[in-house]
Amino acid sequence: MRKLVLLRHGESEWNRENRFTGWTDVPLSEKGVEEAMNAGKLLAGEGYVFDVAFTSVLRRAIKTLWLALEEMDQMWIPIHNSWRLNERHYGALQGLNKAETAERHGMEQVQLWRRSYDIPPPALTLDDPRYPGGDPRYARLTPDQLPLAESLKDTVARFLPYWHGTIAPAVMEGNRVVIAAHGNSLRALVKHLDNMTDEAIVGLNIPTGIPLVYELDESLRPLKSYYLGGEEAAAKAAKAVSEQLARKE
Amino acid sequence: MRKLVLLRHGESEWNRENRFTGWTDVPLSEKGVEEAMNAGKLLAGEGYVFDVAFTSVLRRAIKTLWLALEEMDQMWIPIHNSWRLNERHYGALQGLNKAETAERHGMEQVQLWRRSYDIPPPALTLDDPRYPGGDPRYARLTPDQLPLAESLKDTVARFLPYWHGTIAPAVMEGNRVVIAAHGNSLRALVKHLDNMTDEAIVGLNIPTGIPLVYELDESLRPLKSYYLGGEEAAAKAAKAVSEQLARKE
Repeated sequence: MRKLVLLRHGESEWNRENRFTGWTDVPLSEKGVEEAMNAGKLLAGEGYVFDVAFTSVLRRAIKTLWLALEEMDQMWIPIHNSWRLNERHYGALQGLNKAETAERHGMEQVQLWRRSYDIPPPALTLDDPRYPGGDPRYARLTPDQLPLAESLKDTVARFLPYWHGTIAPAVMEGNRVVIAAHGNSLRALVKHLDNMTDEAIVGLNIPTGIPLVYELDESLRPLKSYYLGGEEAAAKAAKAVSEQLARKE
Repeated sequence: MRKLVLLRHGESEWNRENRFTGWTDVPLSEKGVEEAMNAGKLLAGEGYVFDVAFTSVLRRAIKTLWLALEEMDQMWIPIHNSWRLNERHYGALQGLNKAETAERHGMEQVQLWRRSYDIPPPALTLDDPRYPGGDPRYARLTPDQLPLAESLKDTVARFLPYWHGTIAPAVMEGNRVVIAAHGNSLRALVKHLDNMTDEAIVGLNIPTGIPLVYELDESLRPLKSYYLGGEEAAAKAAKAVSEQLARKE
């Protein structure tokens, strides 16, 4: 039996301000820092030990991982960063307040962008300062790998090669793996592991800062999965995430 | 021309308590955290950008690197951890107060352990709880790689393979490299780069938290080296390090 731990980063400054974030490199809020430390304490308390960690190239996920590993006294394990674990790219919506966007485009349209599987939000133009092509962390990406906007389907498509090529082999080899990432890159993984339909995955909200444990067989088929710290706390946290749209700050 | 940046970790809890530390995994003190952040600010202010970082498996060096990279907004670069960048192993002196040790064994003997090139301090026994063999971060080391005590010569000998096999090739390939490590593993590198004698290296004190920049030619021969933030501040900090022995806290 193999265990795999998924950890969604804690609250970021833009979560707090209720803005579309995507690939914008926003830091954790104070609450997010606390969430990450609590995740680390929870994992340490349950005796979790990791051999290797994977995270995105965005600071809110990296910091979440670092804080958790520090609490666990496992700062020395190898950490691999990949853009393929980044949040879904939110295109021209990045930076906009979610409630204001709902007022402007209509709630129905925004729900479609947020909760449909294959409809991307409005695309960036190549001259937009938000276009990731000029950022050194993406310097090795080919032009067709650099997103202008992503649907969840696009996020799944760019995440899976990293799962199959890098993370899954590490798990198969017996490494105890933790992945610190984002709502939608983790959804991509959960969809794959649990073989969920396109409709089912858009209805799933992964709470922030609560370790999600998968127990897998030798072929990496899930035997069971659960949140550390209790399903009730996880459900409450997930509900808070799903209600973000209505919140204006 | 290639640039290589060396960064000695900031003050640790045991630096503050004036105890021999070695491979003991002591956290940074509050002052050490500040030193690391200041190093990051200094590097960011001077426009330094890194492609890859190397550090030890000890939290005081890792945390120094993490804090500096966070200040530089470069948390996403690859970080490689190696026990070969660890501090010199201080054997049976680890945990002892430096001034008390000087009273017990005589200042002359302690100076010999601290400032000779090839005399190791008293060795650990294999059943000593301080023996690193039981620590998971050293699980892949062979018994003869696990030190019972190290002279500076021993530290040089176990550091150099990592330099030649891993770090130097990365620098040669054009990567901008930062190494966050310890007084004696950095001494090992400086001795090698500057081709210093055994006598000269034991007289060199590298200050904490002040980036030491090497400009190297294509064969990695030093063209020049200097401390960021001015030689005066560096000399003052190095003097403080060299005066530790007399301080009892």
